[in-house]
Amino acid sequence: MGKGLTKRSEDYSKWYNELVVKADLAENSAVRGCMVIKPYGYAIWEKMQAELDKKFKETGHQNAYFPLFVPKSLFEAEEKNAEGFAKECAVVTHYRLKTDPNDSTKLIADPDAKLEEELIVRPTSEAIIWSTYKGWIQSYRDLPLLINQWANVVRWEMRTRLFLRTAEFLWQEGHTAHATKAEAIAETAQMNEIYANFVQDFMAIPVIQGRKTESERFAGADDTYCIEALMQDGKALQAGTSHFLGQNFAKAFDVKFATKEGKQEHVWATSWGVSTRLMGALIMTHSDDQGLVLPPNLAPIQVVIVPIYKGEEQLAEISVKANEIVTALRAKGITVKFDNRDTHRPGAKFAQYELQGVPLRIAIGPKDLAKGQVELARRDTLTKNPVPSEGLAEYIENLLKEIQDSLYAKALNYRDAHITEVNSFEEFKEVLENKGGFIAAHWDGTAETEDKIKTLTKATIRCIPFEFKEEEGSCVFTGNPSSTRVLFAKAY
Amino acid sequence: MGKGLTKRSEDYSKWYNELVVKADLAENSAVRGCMVIKPYGYAIWEKMQAELDKKFKETGHQNAYFPLFVPKSLFEAEEKNAEGFAKECAVVTHYRLKTDPNDSTKLIADPDAKLEEELIVRPTSEAIIWSTYKGWIQSYRDLPLLINQWANVVRWEMRTRLFLRTAEFLWQEGHTAHATKAEAIAETAQMNEIYANFVQDFMAIPVIQGRKTESERFAGADDTYCIEALMQDGKALQAGTSHFLGQNFAKAFDVKFATKEGKQEHVWATSWGVSTRLMGALIMTHSDDQGLVLPPNLAPIQVVIVPIYKGEEQLAEISVKANEIVTALRAKGITVKFDNRDTHRPGAKFAQYELQGVPLRIAIGPKDLAKGQVELARRDTLTKNPVPSEGLAEYIENLLKEIQDSLYAKALNYRDAHITEVNSFEEFKEVLENKGGFIAAHWDGTAETEDKIKTLTKATIRCIPFEFKEEEGSCVFTGNPSSTRVLFAKAY
Repeated sequence: MGKGLTKRSEDYSKWYNELVVKADLAENSAVRGCMVIKPYGYAIWEKMQAELDKKFKETGHQNAYFPLFVPKSLFEAEEKNAEGFAKECAVVTHYRLKTDPNDSTKLIADPDAKLEEELIVRPTSEAIIWSTYKGWIQSYRDLPLLINQWANVVRWEMRTRLFLRTAEFLWQEGHTAHATKAEAIAETAQMNEIYANFVQDFMAIPVIQGRKTESERFAGADDTYCIEALMQDGKALQAGTSHFLGQNFAKAFDVKFATKEGKQEHVWATSWGVSTRLMGALIMTHSDDQGLVLPPNLAPIQVVIVPIYKGEEQLAEISVKANEIVTALRAKGITVKFDNRDTHRPGAKFAQYELQGVPLRIAIGPKDLAKGQVELARRDTLTKNPVPSEGLAEYIENLLKEIQDSLYAKALNYRDAHITEVNSFEEFKEVLENKGGFIAAHWDGTAETEDKIKTLTKATIRCIPFEFKEEEGSCVFTGNPSSTRVLFAKAY
Repeated sequence: MGKGLTKRSEDYSKWYNELVVKADLAENSAVRGCMVIKPYGYAIWEKMQAELDKKFKETGHQNAYFPLFVPKSLFEAEEKNAEGFAKECAVVTHYRLKTDPNDSTKLIADPDAKLEEELIVRPTSEAIIWSTYKGWIQSYRDLPLLINQWANVVRWEMRTRLFLRTAEFLWQEGHTAHATKAEAIAETAQMNEIYANFVQDFMAIPVIQGRKTESERFAGADDTYCIEALMQDGKALQAGTSHFLGQNFAKAFDVKFATKEGKQEHVWATSWGVSTRLMGALIMTHSDDQGLVLPPNLAPIQVVIVPIYKGEEQLAEISVKANEIVTALRAKGITVKFDNRDTHRPGAKFAQYELQGVPLRIAIGPKDLAKGQVELARRDTLTKNPVPSEGLAEYIENLLKEIQDSLYAKALNYRDAHITEVNSFEEFKEVLENKGGFIAAHWDGTAETEDKIKTLTKATIRCIPFEFKEEEGSCVFTGNPSSTRVLFAKAY
């Protein structure tokens, strides 16, 4: 039936936009480029937040909250960072509205309430946080400082897409301070690893860990690690980044500490973040032409029970069995909904839960009751089978794990089949055009070549994978010597 | 010792400011009026959030997220609401910065990137949410719509104080839509009750539930319910509000639904919120001249263990016992920290945990080990006693409950002793000046009288308590007839 969704093969981008809206995940708002995250979409985000928050705390990080606004002078302090974000900044210039003297039903920014110094709505919080850390760090005893913030940020984008690129988005940003370079680098690596494990184990999305080239680095960082995922349409998506900031922010904000030996040294820094963009990765990794497909770990409803009945009496009988199942599943920590609404027919309910990606659907009719069974449908494979009511909860518990694993295996399979080694630029263009995915090619290490390839093909270097071994070769574009392959792709 | 805190009797306001900073709860930031919530303060806020979020979900509410910005034209739509908040609005006028042509190290708002329509940073979200609800509500089947949002909001304040009044603050705002007036009023009452129970049972702060006068109502509401608490200095603090919005926003944004009978009617609305202001209420209800006092429910660390030792060997012996205690307490879900830092002496640790309000402190020295006991100190009473190690976890589990109850009882005692019935304006002024607290007085029901009393005494009507019975009387100020007493107080 397809719920009126455009097919992926017809127009992937249109399919994505329709799915986000029809599955009740998010929608565009009255504010240009800003989205409304709807309850169903937000419930998925909350599950991501809870799991990540636990992982951050287990590794010694604490949450805190820093201001939404950054005074312009602070924002300017770290030059590269300022330059990198200046073109995307929302600027607050007034702190009061007044009635429009020309139209008493309208309001205008009060010219008498112009700020002496403009405030930037944070596009990222390094500046405001490092201006604060200056007061918190005096001695090696204050280090490491391991802080995370859950917050909204604003980066003005001209072309926006729900979850993938919005003017305002939600994220977490970790900001840590360390006594030594080695510790800061270890933290950068640790957080990238935490992101990789989270995205793979919890979201069932395989990722490649690596390092960004200088051109693709975070503005203000000395090194950026990342996790890169591959979407169904062959485009890559950067799913998380972890930055080694060197002493750049410590120097910009003059943050020094007294070492054990009593010397004054600048602090070493990292920052790392993932955002609601992960929702986009989730959708474009698992979903199909019928709608959303959710890994059980992230499903707000893991199992739904739909009664198939005629009349009150049948519903009453079925409800007894359904409630037994609900109790048994909840006892195992499985989220289950018994949808006994009489305003919707079973077919409409099936379509809704399919569209919204509920991993398992149980249907119970009078014949099922008589046979001591239920009909169990898997969202990921779109298969259904009769299953005995006896032992159903254990069966489902195992099946949910199987679905989680199977989704990951399927995505990994696809991803691995879409990493192609190429050795000539002709081959590069041919694979990029006809197959898509990651292209493993030699590159001469210059920003110039990187830029030319980007201009010619729209492909960028997604990362220099940690797992790639050194290998003698020649650049796919210039023929100059290269010591390792890198991964190119078109990307979101 | 007092940790250098000003005494409450000397200067309550100074004591508060010092306490917030010294106990590591929050501090002022580089942005005028905006605070940094430090990890320890944020951990307390997270505990409030978790408990409230659970209560909201148990009553059928779902979380969602709406944009930070409100286009000016939407903001104007509900006139009273717009008028009420216009003077406190931060206004975004530009979406890009560029290099200052007069100084290449500086940035300026790019004149070519001026927004056609200014964006207001949300001071509250009714406008943006009701413009969204218009698309979500068509039929009675879409109602009730029960949504909550955890977010930051900005209200520009000229005189700010940490937690109590800051330009940016964190809060939750519930926004619900209903088919009937009665349902919306029931929701308003239910949420006020949830707030009251939360603040009393979880935060150990007694509150009075009531209704605001028209002058003190939320801008755009037909009725505002509230919970009012009393601080140690005799001033009241509004701890939460729940608004019945009538059809005001539905009319402003043209949100109608088809009834079962097929008629088109405007929807009925509520909104309700509590904020980081609750942190201020928490501090000013329980704390003392030694620092913060926390009810166990809100303490990020409920029990701290401090070893008293000389040399590695003693520490090793004590650590065995300490770790046993840690394990036993954690098994009971009690949060415990074993502070074995060798960089700080026991006295410094004692002072720190006293300042930060850790409810119970266990000290273990070699003599305690020999006697099979520990020294247990209560933060709320500042008493300490030897307690047998045997059965310590059960003892502590019960004691934490006792402390929670005892803090509430103490605060209730104080609050009840500070509700004074007065029958003349002389008495009113005398009590307000010398005793403080709530004054229960007759009022003639006019905004004019309310305003005059406020001008003369700075006391406002905090609420018309639900529990107050009808009672014939005459207004304490005008002598005009009155049918019920109301509660006046000076307030935060």
